[in-house]
Amino acid sequence: MSTINSSAELLHRAQRVRRGALALAQCSDVQRITALEAMAKALENHGDAIVVANKVDQDAAAREGLAAPLLARLKLDGAKLAGCIQGLREVAALPDPIGHRQMHRELAAGLRLERVTVPLGVLGVIFESRPDAVIQIAALAIRSGNGAILKGGREALNTCQAIVTVLQEGLTNSAVDPDSLDLLTSREETMALLQLDDLVDLIVPRGSNDFVRHIQERSNRIPVLGHADGVCHLYVDQRVNIDMAIAVALDAKTQYPAACNTIETLLVHRHVARHFLPPAIQAFTAAGVTLRGDEQAMALGVPEAATPEDWGHEYLDLILAVRVVEDLEAALEHIRRHGSRHTDVICTDDEAAATRFLNTVDSAGVFHNCSSRFADGFRYGFGAEVGISTQTMPPRGPVGLEGLVTYRYRLRGHGHTVAPFACGDQRFSHRDLPET
Amino acid sequence: MSTINSSAELLHRAQRVRRGALALAQCSDVQRITALEAMAKALENHGDAIVVANKVDQDAAAREGLAAPLLARLKLDGAKLAGCIQGLREVAALPDPIGHRQMHRELAAGLRLERVTVPLGVLGVIFESRPDAVIQIAALAIRSGNGAILKGGREALNTCQAIVTVLQEGLTNSAVDPDSLDLLTSREETMALLQLDDLVDLIVPRGSNDFVRHIQERSNRIPVLGHADGVCHLYVDQRVNIDMAIAVALDAKTQYPAACNTIETLLVHRHVARHFLPPAIQAFTAAGVTLRGDEQAMALGVPEAATPEDWGHEYLDLILAVRVVEDLEAALEHIRRHGSRHTDVICTDDEAAATRFLNTVDSAGVFHNCSSRFADGFRYGFGAEVGISTQTMPPRGPVGLEGLVTYRYRLRGHGHTVAPFACGDQRFSHRDLPET
Repeated sequence: MSTINSSAELLHRAQRVRRGALALAQCSDVQRITALEAMAKALENHGDAIVVANKVDQDAAAREGLAAPLLARLKLDGAKLAGCIQGLREVAALPDPIGHRQMHRELAAGLRLERVTVPLGVLGVIFESRPDAVIQIAALAIRSGNGAILKGGREALNTCQAIVTVLQEGLTNSAVDPDSLDLLTSREETMALLQLDDLVDLIVPRGSNDFVRHIQERSNRIPVLGHADGVCHLYVDQRVNIDMAIAVALDAKTQYPAACNTIETLLVHRHVARHFLPPAIQAFTAAGVTLRGDEQAMALGVPEAATPEDWGHEYLDLILAVRVVEDLEAALEHIRRHGSRHTDVICTDDEAAATRFLNTVDSAGVFHNCSSRFADGFRYGFGAEVGISTQTMPPRGPVGLEGLVTYRYRLRGHGHTVAPFACGDQRFSHRDLPET
Repeated sequence: MSTINSSAELLHRAQRVRRGALALAQCSDVQRITALEAMAKALENHGDAIVVANKVDQDAAAREGLAAPLLARLKLDGAKLAGCIQGLREVAALPDPIGHRQMHRELAAGLRLERVTVPLGVLGVIFESRPDAVIQIAALAIRSGNGAILKGGREALNTCQAIVTVLQEGLTNSAVDPDSLDLLTSREETMALLQLDDLVDLIVPRGSNDFVRHIQERSNRIPVLGHADGVCHLYVDQRVNIDMAIAVALDAKTQYPAACNTIETLLVHRHVARHFLPPAIQAFTAAGVTLRGDEQAMALGVPEAATPEDWGHEYLDLILAVRVVEDLEAALEHIRRHGSRHTDVICTDDEAAATRFLNTVDSAGVFHNCSSRFADGFRYGFGAEVGISTQTMPPRGPVGLEGLVTYRYRLRGHGHTVAPFACGDQRFSHRDLPET
């Protein structure tokens, strides 16, 4: 009985968000920018309430013995909040993703087709922890004209409630309907949310790989934007500047080891291995990285042996698997078998080898002579990112506001019917018109 | 035991198609066009074998008592085959969807990002019947650089096998690996195919709504391109050219009633109802259309009563639900509640009403003064279509070759690492460069 009630209640709330989102979709660029500014102001005015609510969550989490890194992610103090507010204003300043004409075509005399970008509708966003992400995602949603149903981690409940209340209050001072945002609080609601394919257009899970996979497996009617594994490779080709390759590999492994765009496996051409590996081993060891190598790599100084499980493994830690390969083709085959189509790098001075690598590896990012850590929405210049997608269909790779919109075909005629075209009395012109 | 064997066998075959597809992705535009021509030639040379195989399928289907419309769809004679071959050559002539640079940006001095279109990889295409669709989809797949694992209806097995054998033979005379195409023959293989998310990038089901829904519900790891319902509406506004509105409504209902882009509900503004409905009823009745109306529509001559189940119902037949609405807003609300976000039409001379409708109805197609039957890849000028998608995320609406490609980010540097950007020693320029 309680499940039925909670589902009915959820349905009612999701319908309210959808209505809010339909109105929001009619708002102009300026109205949405103004709404984000109102959200930022409300956060400034009521920041204290949020920090107090977060203190309640932190105390409860500490009592329950939450691990230190999770406690750190849960924490939202004045400084962190100020950063969030600045981030919100940066999202406000991003170019409008809505209303772009992607296609403009005369189908026949007087019959004009255009394809314009429009909001998706309603996003279902599910976080594992990090209450500050609520602010970022709410900003991205409103900027792109979408409603959002948010669900934070249980341990961040008070903080998330305080944030959403403040954001809604901010929206009351704008043209955007405060109903465009809502917060779910129970795990049951999350699972029920995944079934509302009439009301929710995209699920965005934010958390660990296991969490994302968990959501993906349970959402078979609503598309899920997210990445599961990030098993990135760096291949050092035979013709290479060794110092550069070491610097790039070191950055790609150590600059932030817990990120999905960190390399997990280093592949080295056998002709360069004895020049490259000794100084590389020295550099990695000095940086605290544990290396696990195949036989040839161990013969050149890698201290630990890699097992078959090391290939394709995502450590998200200061561990790196090292393999000496026969040639470029063997490296491509290794990446094909063990990669996760996230981001893979070649270091080489040989343009032909680089071109072969960039054309062949079918990952979202294929890099030449630079660190895999550049695979990121901010670094690509997208301003803010929803996340990095390892799916093959677009949106792929780092996803910015552009991933939160779709398009609509508008066709304007003067009483045009299909019948005369079907029987050949009339013919299509299919003449492209200027897009802008 | 047999399931395990068949899964292992399927895995092996899917891996072979993937390898074929990786090689195919390296082929040039000319090589893919030449491959399609080789496929067309092989069909011309071995058309007799296909027609004979189809006769076997037809005889078996007739013995099993297959319904007449299904028998008609199963039939593939010389004339139909010639049409398929012509269609294949038309797909060959379409512009290459691969290698378009969608983004080109300097991230920092010497660090250049580009986004280029690339094939998806491997398509899993599942047909209910219609063996000729195998030719069309194989052509679209190879043209867009994708491998395809095809599965036809059981009753078309001999025909499909003959077709795929001939197409593969054609490919042996081209640069494209014949392994890029394969045919599955059992239902168990289809279900196992839906689990191969490492090897298959997109599932394309072609068949009835129930069939598409069946596949969608069973594929939670691979995206499915398809449409379920097509509940299209036509709204006749108060300021309207009545003759034009009747002609458009008639075409939208009767030009091909079994299509998904046919209207199922007619909404009429109450101020125009008594002028519009009497002649419209006459025209529809003359065309053999059964009308089911609400009370006000019945008062103006609609003979049958509509029940609540008629709103949002997809007849795919010469039946049309008719409702008199208070105003434009009531029509929008009806479409929001009962529509399927496929294609909806407004007939009006009032530009403001048309704009409100086109901006508000969140369907893939929103049409003004023209028939919903124009919602079609050929009519939009896409040359050929994979199908019409009613999902919200792109590709949406009629999907052509463009829906079978994705993109890849290529980043080229000179030893660039993230660390100096993270600590502020270096700054991003994010300067857009010419796309072409």
